[in-house]
Formats: sequence, C-alpha cells, structure tokens
Amino acid sequence: MRLLLISNSTGPDGGYLDHCADQMVEFIGAGSRVVFVPFAGMDEEAYGTSTVERLNRMGLSASWADRSRDPLVGLVDADAVFVGGGNTFVLLDRLIATGMLDAISERVHGGMTYVGASAGSNVAGPTIKTTNDMPIVEPPTFASFGFIPFQLNPHYIDRDPDSNHQGETREQRLTEYLACNDVPVVALREGAILVVDDGSMTLSGRAGARLYRRGGEVEEIGVGTNLDGLPEYSK
Amino acid sequence: MRLLLISNSTGPDGGYLDHCADQMVEFIGAGSRVVFVPFAGMDEEAYGTSTVERLNRMGLSASWADRSRDPLVGLVDADAVFVGGGNTFVLLDRLIATGMLDAISERVHGGMTYVGASAGSNVAGPTIKTTNDMPIVEPPTFASFGFIPFQLNPHYIDRDPDSNHQGETREQRLTEYLACNDVPVVALREGAILVVDDGSMTLSGRAGARLYRRGGEVEEIGVGTNLDGLPEYSK
Repeated sequence: MRLLLISNSTGPDGGYLDHCADQMVEFIGAGSRVVFVPFAGMDEEAYGTSTVERLNRMGLSASWADRSRDPLVGLVDADAVFVGGGNTFVLLDRLIATGMLDAISERVHGGMTYVGASAGSNVAGPTIKTTNDMPIVEPPTFASFGFIPFQLNPHYIDRDPDSNHQGETREQRLTEYLACNDVPVVALREGAILVVDDGSMTLSGRAGARLYRRGGEVEEIGVGTNLDGLPEYSK
Repeated sequence: MRLLLISNSTGPDGGYLDHCADQMVEFIGAGSRVVFVPFAGMDEEAYGTSTVERLNRMGLSASWADRSRDPLVGLVDADAVFVGGGNTFVLLDRLIATGMLDAISERVHGGMTYVGASAGSNVAGPTIKTTNDMPIVEPPTFASFGFIPFQLNPHYIDRDPDSNHQGETREQRLTEYLACNDVPVVALREGAILVVDDGSMTLSGRAGARLYRRGGEVEEIGVGTNLDGLPEYSK
C-alpha cells in the first residue's frame, strides 16, 4: 500500500498545503491524476474548487469528488486520492453514504496512492475513535478504512503548562482511549507526516510523533524514524 | 423538571465541586438522598467512593451507582441523581447498557432532581453531538436524555488569539454543528451553571454563557439572566 498521512493541511505560516506540497508531488508523481475528496468540509464546492486549483498549481492533474453528481466517477482512472481535512464524523458519514469508503478502499488495496490530511488521515486507521473533532453528525459506524492497524491522532498537541482550562489534555484523552481499547495510537504533531510505501513505514515531515500503547510508556518518534519494527504494523 | 447543569466539576483552584457545593446543597436540599453516577469515569469505584465522601461532607446523604451490582437499585428512593463528568461517549454507552438512561429519565420527568457536571450536563440535551470529548467508545446512538430542547456545550472556551494551533476553535466547531443541525446550543463557560426549576430557567454560577443559533449572531448570556424567553425552551 502507498499512504501519505499528513497531520495538518495548513502550515504554521497559514499557507494551504505549503509545508507538504513538495512531498505530495514527489510521492504522487508529477502530472499524475489525483481526485480530491472535500467531504469533511462544510462548503464542499468551494473546498473542492480551491484545492483542485492548489493541486494543479503543484503540477498535478486534479479533479474533485462532487456529491451533487457521481463522486465515484473520477476514481476509475485516478492515480491517487487526496482526502482533505475538516470534520471527521461528517467525512466518514459521507464516505459511507456515497459508497466512496468501499470504492476508495478497493482501489488503495489495488495500489492506488492514498493521501490524507487531518480528518483524511484519521479515517486511514481502523476507527475514528481518536479524532479530535466534535461529533456533529452521527455516522452509522465509527469503523473507517483500516489501511493501518493502529489509530492516528492528528494535530497532536503537548500539554500547555500555563493553561487553567479544566478540559482534558490530549495525553489524558489518549490514555482513556487505551483504557477502553487495546489498539496503539500514533499521535502526529502538526507538521508530522506518516509515509507507508510498499511495505515500509517512516515518520517524515517537520515534527515528531508519539506512540501510545496500552500498558507502556509513551514513546517519542523522531522525524526520519523507520517504523517497520512496530509490532502492530503488518505489511 | 428540576435540573442543575454545571459546566465543570473542578473549580479554577482545583477543588472538586468547591465552586458549586453551596448551590448544589441548596438546590437538592440538605440531608436529601442523592445517587452519584460515575459512569463517565475510567475508575468508577474510586470516582464513586470519593464523590460520595465529598457529597456527604456537603451534608447530603449520598450513594453511588455501581455497575458491578445493580446500579438501578439506589434510584428507587433517591431525591436526586448527580451524573458526574468524564467522557461523554463512555457515559452514554453505560447509561444505555445498564438501563439507567430510561430509569433516570422516568424519575426526572416524575420530579426527581437532576444534577449534571460536564459530561453529565452534555447528556441532559437531546444528543451528545456538542460534546468536546474524544469518541473512545461507540455508543449505539448519540441520543441522550433530552430534558432540554437545545444542546449544551460545557467547558466553553473563547478563542485564544495567541495560539498557533491549527485545530478548530470552539466557535468554529459549534458553527459547523449548526450547519448540520438546526438546534440551538447554549455554551457554558467554566463556572457557569444552568438552572431549570419547575418552568423557569436561569443562568447562574460564576461565568456567562453564549447562545448559538442557526442564522443568528452569537448572543452573550450574563450570569443571572432569566432564559424563559428562549423560544426553544418549552416547559
């Protein structure tokens, strides 16, 4: 399988896909046909149109999956699919309702490249149980693509020692996830990118990640780390 | 109906229930029998035991609902139920699995006092779609008590202008909720308490709230505001 799983689509300077554009083009291949899936967004047409413009500007040949027509049609001869960020519950609900969950899954298992950012990375795991998003719609299930056998937590944020807010820290939330589920979580800091390329997995990008496992200490994963040794990672 | 819906159970000084203890006792009535529901917590026995101790110290006669025995038994002659904070998905899942959702609902509609904090306040609304919590378990439905005809968002936090984090602000999340659902949201800042007392609704506590409505400006609700005029509020 070929997966590029990006923590966040907007860089610290606010530019859309700027921090990962070069890597996306290198991974997908210049000139390749890519279908953008804007289902996680509230205004899909604006999101689809602007992202297609951005992808074309990178030198890709982009289109977007339009739910008002047949969103499956562009997938047939696509080299890659790019599932964008937004709300993970809305995304999964629409992926299921359109049949895109099964269609994309089949193509990716057949070799098509999958690129996800934020919510689009969340759904690459077995479930959406480690999303940070608000459950504003109720999908029929939390089960998602399951391209990787562990959960992702994008936009991972370390505890702010100066905060007085009484809500849980991300670390507390993921620890509670592990109390209820014996499935590891790779928490991607903003800037981090997980690359799966035909049997090899590497942490890439500009920031590290943390590996949460039931019963174990949280492990830091630095940029450039090869993760093939992760016991839960089966090719 | 009699509802005391508290945004957060831990005050800014870190004391458990300190900021709302006097109001809880006044609302429930000194010496009254109250059943604490610890289902939102990870260690229910520790949570149940320590909260019972805290409630007794307030001058209430407390017990806790133990899922390892029959959690329904204490409810029969209780004057009030107190549903504590933690993870809202875990709470709703356990309320449904034990039959407590229906049992508490029936008693509250019959006049029993309901006190909720954080997750316990979330479930007082029609659904848990405006919780801030991570969906670490998958409940069979998002539908909750529906004691009030609008959503609550506890631990409401205003936008931090100094933050570089690319995740959504709470305001963005609630605006997206409204794009998908035409149900108003009362967002309770930490310290805020919503009081429903036999046909009258008031914002109480130490901090204000914000009212989010589809197609309208967000409205500030100050402490002491009578909310009977809220069109969506039916007695």
